[in-house]
Amino acid sequence: MSNERRVGVWLIGACGSVSTCAIAGVEALRAGLIDRTGMVTDLEDFRSLDLAAPENFVFGGHEARPADLVKEAEEFGRANGVLTPEILAAARPGLERASANLRPGLTLNCGDGLRRVAPVADRDRLPLPEIVESLKRDLAEFRSRHALDDLVVVNLASAEREFAAPREFAYLESFLGLLAADRRELFPASVLYATAALESGCPYVNFTSSPGSSLPAVDELSRRHGAPHVGRDAKTGETLLKTALAPMFAARNLRVLSWEGHNLLGNRDGLVLDSPAHKEAKLRDKDAVLRDLLPGGCVHSRVRIDYVPSLGDWKTAWDFIHFSGFLGARMHLQFTWHGCDSALAAPLVLDLVRFAEFAHRRGERGTMRHLACFFKAPYAVEEHNFHLQTEMLLDYAQEHRTRSRHPAAAEAGRP
Amino acid sequence: MSNERRVGVWLIGACGSVSTCAIAGVEALRAGLIDRTGMVTDLEDFRSLDLAAPENFVFGGHEARPADLVKEAEEFGRANGVLTPEILAAARPGLERASANLRPGLTLNCGDGLRRVAPVADRDRLPLPEIVESLKRDLAEFRSRHALDDLVVVNLASAEREFAAPREFAYLESFLGLLAADRRELFPASVLYATAALESGCPYVNFTSSPGSSLPAVDELSRRHGAPHVGRDAKTGETLLKTALAPMFAARNLRVLSWEGHNLLGNRDGLVLDSPAHKEAKLRDKDAVLRDLLPGGCVHSRVRIDYVPSLGDWKTAWDFIHFSGFLGARMHLQFTWHGCDSALAAPLVLDLVRFAEFAHRRGERGTMRHLACFFKAPYAVEEHNFHLQTEMLLDYAQEHRTRSRHPAAAEAGRP
Amino acid sequence: MSNERRVGVWLIGACGSVSTCAIAGVEALRAGLIDRTGMVTDLEDFRSLDLAAPENFVFGGHEARPADLVKEAEEFGRANGVLTPEILAAARPGLERASANLRPGLTLNCGDGLRRVAPVADRDRLPLPEIVESLKRDLAEFRSRHALDDLVVVNLASAEREFAAPREFAYLESFLGLLAADRRELFPASVLYATAALESGCPYVNFTSSPGSSLPAVDELSRRHGAPHVGRDAKTGETLLKTALAPMFAARNLRVLSWEGHNLLGNRDGLVLDSPAHKEAKLRDKDAVLRDLLPGGCVHSRVRIDYVPSLGDWKTAWDFIHFSGFLGARMHLQFTWHGCDSALAAPLVLDLVRFAEFAHRRGERGTMRHLACFFKAPYAVEEHNFHLQTEMLLDYAQEHRTRSRHPAAAEAGRP
Amino acid sequence: MSNERRVGVWLIGACGSVSTCAIAGVEALRAGLIDRTGMVTDLEDFRSLDLAAPENFVFGGHEARPADLVKEAEEFGRANGVLTPEILAAARPGLERASANLRPGLTLNCGDGLRRVAPVADRDRLPLPEIVESLKRDLAEFRSRHALDDLVVVNLASAEREFAAPREFAYLESFLGLLAADRRELFPASVLYATAALESGCPYVNFTSSPGSSLPAVDELSRRHGAPHVGRDAKTGETLLKTALAPMFAARNLRVLSWEGHNLLGNRDGLVLDSPAHKEAKLRDKDAVLRDLLPGGCVHSRVRIDYVPSLGDWKTAWDFIHFSGFLGARMHLQFTWHGCDSALAAPLVLDLVRFAEFAHRRGERGTMRHLACFFKAPYAVEEHNFHLQTEMLLDYAQEHRTRSRHPAAAEAGRP
Repeated sequence: MSNERRVGVWLIGACGSVSTCAIAGVEALRAGLIDRTGMVTDLEDFRSLDLAAPENFVFGGHEARPADLVKEAEEFGRANGVLTPEILAAARPGLERASANLRPGLTLNCGDGLRRVAPVADRDRLPLPEIVESLKRDLAEFRSRHALDDLVVVNLASAEREFAAPREFAYLESFLGLLAADRRELFPASVLYATAALESGCPYVNFTSSPGSSLPAVDELSRRHGAPHVGRDAKTGETLLKTALAPMFAARNLRVLSWEGHNLLGNRDGLVLDSPAHKEAKLRDKDAVLRDLLPGGCVHSRVRIDYVPSLGDWKTAWDFIHFSGFLGARMHLQFTWHGCDSALAAPLVLDLVRFAEFAHRRGERGTMRHLACFFKAPYAVEEHNFHLQTEMLLDYAQEHRTRSRHPAAAEAGRP
Repeated sequence: MSNERRVGVWLIGACGSVSTCAIAGVEALRAGLIDRTGMVTDLEDFRSLDLAAPENFVFGGHEARPADLVKEAEEFGRANGVLTPEILAAARPGLERASANLRPGLTLNCGDGLRRVAPVADRDRLPLPEIVESLKRDLAEFRSRHALDDLVVVNLASAEREFAAPREFAYLESFLGLLAADRRELFPASVLYATAALESGCPYVNFTSSPGSSLPAVDELSRRHGAPHVGRDAKTGETLLKTALAPMFAARNLRVLSWEGHNLLGNRDGLVLDSPAHKEAKLRDKDAVLRDLLPGGCVHSRVRIDYVPSLGDWKTAWDFIHFSGFLGARMHLQFTWHGCDSALAAPLVLDLVRFAEFAHRRGERGTMRHLACFFKAPYAVEEHNFHLQTEMLLDYAQEHRTRSRHPAAAEAGRP
Repeated sequence: MSNERRVGVWLIGACGSVSTCAIAGVEALRAGLIDRTGMVTDLEDFRSLDLAAPENFVFGGHEARPADLVKEAEEFGRANGVLTPEILAAARPGLERASANLRPGLTLNCGDGLRRVAPVADRDRLPLPEIVESLKRDLAEFRSRHALDDLVVVNLASAEREFAAPREFAYLESFLGLLAADRRELFPASVLYATAALESGCPYVNFTSSPGSSLPAVDELSRRHGAPHVGRDAKTGETLLKTALAPMFAARNLRVLSWEGHNLLGNRDGLVLDSPAHKEAKLRDKDAVLRDLLPGGCVHSRVRIDYVPSLGDWKTAWDFIHFSGFLGARMHLQFTWHGCDSALAAPLVLDLVRFAEFAHRRGERGTMRHLACFFKAPYAVEEHNFHLQTEMLLDYAQEHRTRSRHPAAAEAGRP
Repeated sequence: MSNERRVGVWLIGACGSVSTCAIAGVEALRAGLIDRTGMVTDLEDFRSLDLAAPENFVFGGHEARPADLVKEAEEFGRANGVLTPEILAAARPGLERASANLRPGLTLNCGDGLRRVAPVADRDRLPLPEIVESLKRDLAEFRSRHALDDLVVVNLASAEREFAAPREFAYLESFLGLLAADRRELFPASVLYATAALESGCPYVNFTSSPGSSLPAVDELSRRHGAPHVGRDAKTGETLLKTALAPMFAARNLRVLSWEGHNLLGNRDGLVLDSPAHKEAKLRDKDAVLRDLLPGGCVHSRVRIDYVPSLGDWKTAWDFIHFSGFLGARMHLQFTWHGCDSALAAPLVLDLVRFAEFAHRRGERGTMRHLACFFKAPYAVEEHNFHLQTEMLLDYAQEHRTRSRHPAAAEAGRP
């Protein structure tokens, strides 16, 4: 029964807010202090899929800062609420266990913004091939020590700066060639992590806007090693709303003249994004969705992210949508979103691990296209309409429920 | 070529704001002053359907107030903008032509609220069978005078008060029996209009929250006379947003604790709705959608409509959505919608006439379920998710595009 | 030194949210867990006044519900945050001490709404003169037991229903006559509490919209017994904003066409206000301020208060202000206020006690007009402009700072 | 009777939106199409002052673009409403008359942003002393041709780029020395305009954020030539609200943690401000007010201005104010302002001309400090609280009403 499988979850950026909330959340679930609200996999439609139970997840990960999960959780609770004293008390043993599974991270080519929160990592100094090997050893060691049935790697590290992939990254051969040649100026940490994960046969989830496994060469790695992957940049707030709302304007043939989005946030991610090169990469994903969702695009759009320390993890976003309708009437919609970013993201991490382990178990490889609804810039999927992306996931669940009931047919249908 | 068909549009409440904007809008289209922005049927997906051109529509209708379309349009422009002097100048001849096609309306059992805007109609005093006959004569006379290829009836009259249908309205036989027996206390005007339309073989669109053709007996009339119908209560603003946004909360398993909607508007509809029995009927439709869209419903919801004269036709709605996510975090989304109600509704009237005429021409009868995306409380459709309703309409278009290309196959496929 | 005076604070509605926050807040101040943010008397301008220190306040009061301050505080913390575990731990002894000073309340003629939260009080059954005597005994007993230098009574009980004072309440003689005659249908609890307080020589603060000491007869009592009083209905959120913002529209000669205010809240006050007769009284105060602040009044205004349980103490208010300017341009301002009602009110309770004790010590009697800036419907003050009301308070402070420095001159200036 | 005085109004940036609305507005007033709503001087408190009637104003001005007031007005009406066809028809003769009084402007050192809307002016090429002389000739010629009783110069030109005054601008002598030496790199157009106006004995109003008459040397010019002046940067929207609201937080000792302001606008000013150096100057004034109004300043504040073409003149601003209160409770207020910038500014231009002419007539010179309530960064006034600034103006009116009634006493009171 998959419910009893021991699934390892290896978090890159393991002491960040999202990681902390994910681990503390699993402990709170175990203790019966919270329910699975916010987890997509808890919806009726997915309950009959044979997914691994989050209560049995074992956590570990890489972290570039000198940090400790118990302290992170306490600080988070003090600044943002949500992690209440009851939850903190219940989660303490689990957070300590996970802290014991931390390994030092990598910060190579992450960008200036990261320097605001983390020092240069020792591992950065190794030649590239050794870096990848050392990361793989961390995974293997964790896997064997905890006798894990599978291990899923999730990138939750702060957004790297804007990155232009060299032409050679389009093919696995040349990609590996540059890596072997230690062309260190070309490889950001997220790409090295993804390489190590997939070469280790671990499913990989790129929760961030960093390049990670987005390159064609890395997709090829995924296929070669039989470990599925997915990304990029989970949508949890303002962009989620955009992809839910823009289709309404399109379906009613209302012409969006301007869509201005202004995001305020005050957590560590916000601090890193306050650095221009990091912000640029992030904004690109947030803004691009509109071009695809609005017929003829949007005449004018802009996204801003501003660092407002007092808000902590409570992302507050104002969007102003100016549109015209019949008879040239000019109207507007505006909304304000006020959400705890990490509490929105953490359950999706658990969902993605469950889906990734399930796909891996079923022999899937390459991009998990059915998970597009989780991402701002889903790999290999053109559709940005959140509702149609949701239908894609429901179709997948529908298909796999059927297959589960008829294992033979399921086998036959597999490539 | 259907593009050249002369389609008559018979508007009940013919001098209201929506009617006025629809007629003036068609004239502005003819004059090239505006484009089809706001018309769903102008989207790429529907362009290849063989729909009648709105520029060839011929307008007439019933109106209970002593009113004139030119004056209405001028007043609308003064109060709300949108109908600019250029549009008014271009629309004047068309508005005058339509004014010549007006016939006195019916106000029987419409409720106290209507008394704020219209006197008791003379026709109310006739026995019920004579009322229906006189309405049918109006339609027949209009049809023949203008040599129309088809005639679609659209109910745009102010919302009637809350109505509880007697048991006998479940069956056509007993319904017609009560009508013949002149049980006048049981029949609101909208039901009599719908009866007259369908018995005349005219497709009928119930754009309002009034009962109209919503009764099983009237649906039977539609089937018997081969004229399709659809309703109820077009969604143009706050409810449209609700049905576009609530599925997002459901798909992410976020728990909506409270959804408060506060609508402000200042037009004639607002004045009628300021009367409690009218408001009740309207609010029911606006609130019900949430029950269906949120898993386990919404813990607490409320809709208010307040009359604010200075806003005129510019509906301004504030919705506050309180929800909880993972770890019990309580978050909120709020939005403000500021839209010209009639400029949002008018193009949908034109869309519905086009779809109704098309369906009639293809021999459809009974409820046009594929038009659910236009309505707050669609007849015979459980689905309230706007995006899935949109898919239903796209599927219909897809199917009929194919059929149009292979007319023989299309014939064969018809029941 | 007044800083060391032992001032008793007798709270009517002693276990409500505001009381709970005030008492817990004083304990948190004592423990150094919080500072005086939110207390007006902590502003530079008032620091040199010789005000009593809140850290030395001794709390007691009347409460109509069977309730306990520790439990109330814990529940408040769970539902609303703010009272964090640290604060609760520090406040526990003080809350227990205050709980020991509770006496059963009175609910006579409080209205149906109160029945939702409290049973009929035993004391209601006594003849009126005995009720007043028993209340006075409670005050005297508290005062002597704790060896208090002074005792200030503050009404924090839930809003009573709308009340029309009989003509006889205009004069102290006839007022006392009706009381002696036990005309119990005429006396709401708040009036009896105020009578008992003032006859006991205790300054009285009417923090609520209930009649309390607002009657001319009761003002006469204040003068006769040398105990100053003040009221009515503290402004802490939406109305505060109204009185801060409306003067701006007036000063710029902008014409407010409509001002719609929509308040959502979910605490016990909200539950009581959900009863129509209670809401009416409350709304009157909230709406009246606009009439005085806008030249020629406001064409159209409305205030709504809706009970939204999930919000608890977090009042969320949306105001929409439609206005016109030069050239007839129609514009709007809207705001959303999201504040913890009791955390906003509690420090004002402490301020008012400090000011009332100070005034009493200086021999003031009758209405404390200089405190108008604290109230929605200040007794005997026409000015509703918050900024000018603030100037009145600053002038008072200025005058008394001077006097303090020259006590002889101060004496000479007193009537 | 001053009501019949012919007052000339010389507008710098004479074909901009504010100028156009001011001139068209005066014509609409003359025609009885609008009333004086939006004009401060129309308030009861100022009616008894002996102010010149705006209906008798004669308009002329400098304009750097090749432009025509009739066309500007028509374009404004098309894009923004407000200038309706009726108003345009009534205003046409007046706009034509004013167009005849236009003279080519100056663009020296205005910054790159201005290049987006205007070419390099011919006059820029003259030596500085000749520029000033030529501007003075324009004023003199206008004055004599129209037999004006007085002439007020108002700077309404687009915001110049950030400007650092050289030390020598602190003294008139050295300022005039640099001007005579043709040190053209040091003098922005606005300073030259102000110099020409004051040397001509014309009162000068700096409605913009440009340096204009803000320099000590220019203030000395004002005193020497007996022409009063005032500035800087009229507050019409978001900053007005800030200076009306921030005092409320201060008066209640609420601690503002963050105040984020996001302004969207789409007119020519917005286009110029889209250039960084121009935006910087503007933002400084908008942000500085908070530092003065909040005790201990504001922990974090930011102002953004973004160019959104579809909005035209309809400035839309969202402000988010995060604050903490008693017990450390963190709360927020947010507002959205949606106003027609030029319709808000135009009546203030008329007010300032009236006040300036009145002051000139009474012999005032130097800064008109009583007009601080009109400006974001008032010359020589520390007070930013809008309500106290308003009191300053009321005090001035009070004083001068009295004097008007007793002319002898008034004379005696003059320096």
